[in-house]
Amino acid sequence: MTIPSGLILDSFIRDWLLEDIGKGDRTTDGIFGLESPVGKAHWLLKEEGVIAGLPIAQRVFTLLDGQMKYENLIQEGEKIPIGTKIWEIEGKMSALLTGERLALNLVMHLSGIATMTRKYVEAIADYQTKLVDTRKTTPGLRILEKYASTVGGAINHRMGLDDAIMIKDNHMQAAGGIPEAIKLIRQSMPYPLSIEIETSCLEEVQIAIEQGADIIMLDNMTVENMTRAVNLIRKENSLIKIEASGNVTLANIEKIAGTGIDYISTSATITRSSWLDISMRFGQ
Amino acid sequence: MTIPSGLILDSFIRDWLLEDIGKGDRTTDGIFGLESPVGKAHWLLKEEGVIAGLPIAQRVFTLLDGQMKYENLIQEGEKIPIGTKIWEIEGKMSALLTGERLALNLVMHLSGIATMTRKYVEAIADYQTKLVDTRKTTPGLRILEKYASTVGGAINHRMGLDDAIMIKDNHMQAAGGIPEAIKLIRQSMPYPLSIEIETSCLEEVQIAIEQGADIIMLDNMTVENMTRAVNLIRKENSLIKIEASGNVTLANIEKIAGTGIDYISTSATITRSSWLDISMRFGQ
Amino acid sequence: MTIPSGLILDSFIRDWLLEDIGKGDRTTDGIFGLESPVGKAHWLLKEEGVIAGLPIAQRVFTLLDGQMKYENLIQEGEKIPIGTKIWEIEGKMSALLTGERLALNLVMHLSGIATMTRKYVEAIADYQTKLVDTRKTTPGLRILEKYASTVGGAINHRMGLDDAIMIKDNHMQAAGGIPEAIKLIRQSMPYPLSIEIETSCLEEVQIAIEQGADIIMLDNMTVENMTRAVNLIRKENSLIKIEASGNVTLANIEKIAGTGIDYISTSATITRSSWLDISMRFGQ
Amino acid sequence: MTIPSGLILDSFIRDWLLEDIGKGDRTTDGIFGLESPVGKAHWLLKEEGVIAGLPIAQRVFTLLDGQMKYENLIQEGEKIPIGTKIWEIEGKMSALLTGERLALNLVMHLSGIATMTRKYVEAIADYQTKLVDTRKTTPGLRILEKYASTVGGAINHRMGLDDAIMIKDNHMQAAGGIPEAIKLIRQSMPYPLSIEIETSCLEEVQIAIEQGADIIMLDNMTVENMTRAVNLIRKENSLIKIEASGNVTLANIEKIAGTGIDYISTSATITRSSWLDISMRFGQ
Amino acid sequence: MTIPSGLILDSFIRDWLLEDIGKGDRTTDGIFGLESPVGKAHWLLKEEGVIAGLPIAQRVFTLLDGQMKYENLIQEGEKIPIGTKIWEIEGKMSALLTGERLALNLVMHLSGIATMTRKYVEAIADYQTKLVDTRKTTPGLRILEKYASTVGGAINHRMGLDDAIMIKDNHMQAAGGIPEAIKLIRQSMPYPLSIEIETSCLEEVQIAIEQGADIIMLDNMTVENMTRAVNLIRKENSLIKIEASGNVTLANIEKIAGTGIDYISTSATITRSSWLDISMRFGQ
Amino acid sequence: MTIPSGLILDSFIRDWLLEDIGKGDRTTDGIFGLESPVGKAHWLLKEEGVIAGLPIAQRVFTLLDGQMKYENLIQEGEKIPIGTKIWEIEGKMSALLTGERLALNLVMHLSGIATMTRKYVEAIADYQTKLVDTRKTTPGLRILEKYASTVGGAINHRMGLDDAIMIKDNHMQAAGGIPEAIKLIRQSMPYPLSIEIETSCLEEVQIAIEQGADIIMLDNMTVENMTRAVNLIRKENSLIKIEASGNVTLANIEKIAGTGIDYISTSATITRSSWLDISMRFGQ
Repeated sequence: MTIPSGLILDSFIRDWLLEDIGKGDRTTDGIFGLESPVGKAHWLLKEEGVIAGLPIAQRVFTLLDGQMKYENLIQEGEKIPIGTKIWEIEGKMSALLTGERLALNLVMHLSGIATMTRKYVEAIADYQTKLVDTRKTTPGLRILEKYASTVGGAINHRMGLDDAIMIKDNHMQAAGGIPEAIKLIRQSMPYPLSIEIETSCLEEVQIAIEQGADIIMLDNMTVENMTRAVNLIRKENSLIKIEASGNVTLANIEKIAGTGIDYISTSATITRSSWLDISMRFGQ
Repeated sequence: MTIPSGLILDSFIRDWLLEDIGKGDRTTDGIFGLESPVGKAHWLLKEEGVIAGLPIAQRVFTLLDGQMKYENLIQEGEKIPIGTKIWEIEGKMSALLTGERLALNLVMHLSGIATMTRKYVEAIADYQTKLVDTRKTTPGLRILEKYASTVGGAINHRMGLDDAIMIKDNHMQAAGGIPEAIKLIRQSMPYPLSIEIETSCLEEVQIAIEQGADIIMLDNMTVENMTRAVNLIRKENSLIKIEASGNVTLANIEKIAGTGIDYISTSATITRSSWLDISMRFGQ
Repeated sequence: MTIPSGLILDSFIRDWLLEDIGKGDRTTDGIFGLESPVGKAHWLLKEEGVIAGLPIAQRVFTLLDGQMKYENLIQEGEKIPIGTKIWEIEGKMSALLTGERLALNLVMHLSGIATMTRKYVEAIADYQTKLVDTRKTTPGLRILEKYASTVGGAINHRMGLDDAIMIKDNHMQAAGGIPEAIKLIRQSMPYPLSIEIETSCLEEVQIAIEQGADIIMLDNMTVENMTRAVNLIRKENSLIKIEASGNVTLANIEKIAGTGIDYISTSATITRSSWLDISMRFGQ
Repeated sequence: MTIPSGLILDSFIRDWLLEDIGKGDRTTDGIFGLESPVGKAHWLLKEEGVIAGLPIAQRVFTLLDGQMKYENLIQEGEKIPIGTKIWEIEGKMSALLTGERLALNLVMHLSGIATMTRKYVEAIADYQTKLVDTRKTTPGLRILEKYASTVGGAINHRMGLDDAIMIKDNHMQAAGGIPEAIKLIRQSMPYPLSIEIETSCLEEVQIAIEQGADIIMLDNMTVENMTRAVNLIRKENSLIKIEASGNVTLANIEKIAGTGIDYISTSATITRSSWLDISMRFGQ
Repeated sequence: MTIPSGLILDSFIRDWLLEDIGKGDRTTDGIFGLESPVGKAHWLLKEEGVIAGLPIAQRVFTLLDGQMKYENLIQEGEKIPIGTKIWEIEGKMSALLTGERLALNLVMHLSGIATMTRKYVEAIADYQTKLVDTRKTTPGLRILEKYASTVGGAINHRMGLDDAIMIKDNHMQAAGGIPEAIKLIRQSMPYPLSIEIETSCLEEVQIAIEQGADIIMLDNMTVENMTRAVNLIRKENSLIKIEASGNVTLANIEKIAGTGIDYISTSATITRSSWLDISMRFGQ
Repeated sequence: MTIPSGLILDSFIRDWLLEDIGKGDRTTDGIFGLESPVGKAHWLLKEEGVIAGLPIAQRVFTLLDGQMKYENLIQEGEKIPIGTKIWEIEGKMSALLTGERLALNLVMHLSGIATMTRKYVEAIADYQTKLVDTRKTTPGLRILEKYASTVGGAINHRMGLDDAIMIKDNHMQAAGGIPEAIKLIRQSMPYPLSIEIETSCLEEVQIAIEQGADIIMLDNMTVENMTRAVNLIRKENSLIKIEASGNVTLANIEKIAGTGIDYISTSATITRSSWLDISMRFGQ
């Protein structure tokens, strides 16, 4: 996804600033009061990585000082080496000091995700297969983490429970089978939504095809079974999308891509990423 | 800190449920409509770790089904082996399916932090020194991540910019020195707040003592300098707390504790933790 | 869609109650103060129609009096004759009087939509073709009006701008053509989303097929052209959904359905419906 | 009422934009990303009617693009013929496309109300009698629908339960009579509020006069009885306002006005209006 | 006014609890954690006064502990002597300790207002004249302070800018005179609203009568002029309400009431009241 | 504390404006509609006092008219004589009239607090002792009332339950003594928080010192006992802060200060202050 609009973003950032500021930044307010001099700062990358979230960090500072000025020295999504100066920023010292932590927390966290994602994406760069994320995201941060995921080079899976149907094992059991589940769901869902069905064997793949699935997920299958499933599905209908899921690692991802599958989903790029180390320095 | 009160928690959880549910859980609602049968599920730990966040996960399910029942099989904060059944839960199938992802996302993330924290805490278990966290927390999740940090065995540092003073390099420069900074801040701060001063050498430590600092932070000092600083401070006043910060790792933390310092702060337990792997199984 | 969960609904209803109550129901509060006797009331249908929104009206009264009791005499979605008693309700007189207007406003408005929708649905009851709604909904009421639409027998189209792609004329022009638009969108959209393309002639239909459209909308085409388009598409891929749009009326809808199209969309069921007349009577 | 202030309006519009945009306008954002070219559009009226809501539609677009420019070609409240160009608008293509639906939904709905209201108002233009609306308004939209009502030429009745007293049948019964109801209410109501009493016969009118009613509503009376009631009231006190209510239609409204009554209230102008058809065209 | 409904009140109380609790009641939570024993407490009046706000204080404690029990030993609105036990309360010690300050702050502040109001009300108890409050209320507390005002025995003036018209000097000047101001306002105001006109001499009183004012305010007039104004108005129309305003004190209020005026308004009961001293004791 | 940042303040002011405006300022909107002429006004002090809240009042008017201009004729915190012109203000007449009441309510209330505080502060001006406020503040207004308190010359005590520990009698009893209470609290509190212990005799003071209290409060002690306590504490540790509390009056405050205590806390400056009388005049 593209960066979320200010309409969505600003209200998040206000909440996050207030989480940190609470009833007031006692240190900074004590020193500067209402009148702060203008100062300069820059950000320095302390380990190699892919940068994500700079426009969001700008909103943080701008909400604290409407006159804040920025000079970007790199591009969002660039992989840059350790020691790189990321941007220069100029505005009220009080705004720089009060906003520093939140702005860094956001960019370090999102860049960590983008950096980890880039590794997986590069591992399958020679294939048509695309990397996709999951709904395993930090509560409250889904749109930003999914944004970082695309900055890293992945494609987003569904954003929530309301923009695609995903029928899992337990749904099928509760409904009494795949056909029954699909029939029930089609009666109440907005019709443009895609139906994805989780399958664990070729028999289930066959049923999913017959029931008109838009997306078939091959869950924890061996590479051999995946290859068979891909062939089976392609033969039937070129519009069906095929996704592999389960136990994806940097070690095995290329082999999975080799099956000709459309999408490989993994939560590791978000749940196993570390923050990218960045520091803010005052002065030029 | 203790677990946040329902007053604070419920409004967070509602927002997070809505982040995932959006305009409706199309799959689950389609199958169950308004009337869902009751079902059972349990959680299974898929790698060894320290569990944090169970009471929060309960609120997630309870907000979806007020009649939900829980049987905890382990204690919050216990370190448990892979394969352990964590709890059993019984309630509307629709609530179990709709709440599953958020409840797991919370507990997996928080348990990851608690697990990582426990490792650092155990490394200094033989010392009086306490591990403390920082303000490097995921935006929107500070009170929960800090809670997980205490579940892991750490002590919280300040919760935000409003419950303690922390005078850093840039504050001092802007004010024209430590004494000037402290004087300005004392004029406007609530008087019970502690003043912590960041120092990088023994000269600064000496000034901090003279200015009446409540907490002196030794930033990126060598172990030798730390030892000298601790001696210097202890000699002056037993109420001054001493904190070490900067480049703390599992490899060097015991040596730092050996200096007799009160607190060692690190952000790694939060910013470098991975989610602990847990899965939800339906049926008994 | 199914009725929205309490999580979503209750906060709407609170806002709407406050819209009417403001700083207090001066008349009812003046008479009853804090202690109101219990009373009975019932609702009477004053013109034939399809009832929608009863569970929502119940939440209105329950939020004002947690002990309110209901006896439904008809089913949500039933078409019932003039003069029918819809339900009986018993609870605090003050809650009945304060909630009366909002509860009726909701059910009268939603039932008006359901009634109008039912007429269109019945007109194509002999065909496979389904009626669908649009995004022309009253601001703030989309999920409820779309719910009423399904109560009337229609299928929902997309709920908003985020759960399906709809490429219109202006998007194509801005991008420089259908293929360019699709290429750009595929780079940033969550992959399970369907892509619907608006077409006005057979050439555009052909391009849409080639570009892998999931849904093709035939906009303002003649019945003859629709028939040709349906044949063209069906020949290519059975998974592509076909929708007719533009100038749909009760007079021509059957003819359109006769083309074998999957969906016919109209906003008239919402934008041209009148409230169904219902009144609330006190006493048995 | 005059158009609501930005303080009230902007928060509504933000909520409504988010209702439609959700997690992002996938189509428009996909094509334009963060940088959209500037484009032009205009609105075209597709059936004769009275336009209401233009300043509100401007806020919709302005909230999406602060640089949006407007040239109004007609006045708010003008009755204009089919085919008229309403305004020209110039700004970011992305803002024009994302805001189009909400802006049109608002103006089409409000103009539908203004158009319907104008018909009733014109029917009694030769009389002193004023048309007034009711509390039968779409939940969440009362201030806007009441605004559209005044654009159409009506006068607003009370805005909610807190800015006037209206004693109905059930209030009287619960209190034990009109005098008892009034006595109770006067003890707790803000004293400047008017007391309106619903009457269905001349005896009740007489009691209402004696009890000091500020407004007397004649509910469902015959024209003959209305005339008698008006004479009775005028004789007593020139400050008492008289309102007719119940079964008002375009067919009988002039006769009612002929009784010399001050106000005629009807909900039909809101509950039985259809959206006025307007379309947005891109390019000059 | 009567006590505001829970719908309005609970959201206020939540905000106020959070104002005090912030990120957690460190002292109480530290001692009791999640499991608190049940304890008892009572409230003791430390100076004579009129009690207001007990039902509101109950909501404070109930929101912290749903099982809290209360035994009221006095009635809301009673004037009670120093040393009186007001109520007994039993529930979780943690809830008693965390809620204590807010509950007391509310009742002490509101009882201060009720006590002050009672003094003014008693001073004119032998007259038909009623005491009324003004819009000089503490920001955010208007409905509660106005409620306390009625508990003290006063009648509320308008609640805000939207439930009555008050034409002051500056409005008249801006409009070009009283008649012009009234004419403009009548075009856009909801018709049941009363129009109050501020007058400072008998000429203005005469114009106000002629323009159909519902309420005439005599601003800062001498008692002699007030008497003349009352006679003038009564002669014209018995429905016009007359209000005296300006420099009302306990010393001169009886004389003002002696003019036969309907209402005397003063802000002193709110702006010059002190908190009534109450303390909370633990144990029986 | 310094004046709260716009981030915090603006959302308060919006709520307060809406509390007064409700659904619209019927009088002002009726006269000016959407287009208001620009006018001038000034504020006049009607009794001697210390002014607090001017920057907050400016935000009130600026939120209603972004072009509003101000000329301050005095300084925030100045004690000025009756009859002083405080400021001149120029902007839309409609904004001046709609915002007048809220702006005055804020400044009159806050200046009342600042004025009362100044009296206490002046009474101990010759001592090192500082005056501090308490948590007895009007619900919803704590940060503003505490701000006014500092404008008056006091120092703030803790802002809420989360920025300092205060162990009172009931906490000790519940925990089983001071040492037990402190031990429990230290396990869960953020470590930089100060621990204040309430003591009522010298024995408790001794225990508090031994337990490492950061602040010792002498509650309702005689001046003789206070002097002994101060000596006892100073002898032990120069960093321990000492606070006197209970029955502080203008009559006895100097004597208390004479004991050499650090802080004297009183709620009277807030709970017993009256609004400072200020009026707004239109025209130059």
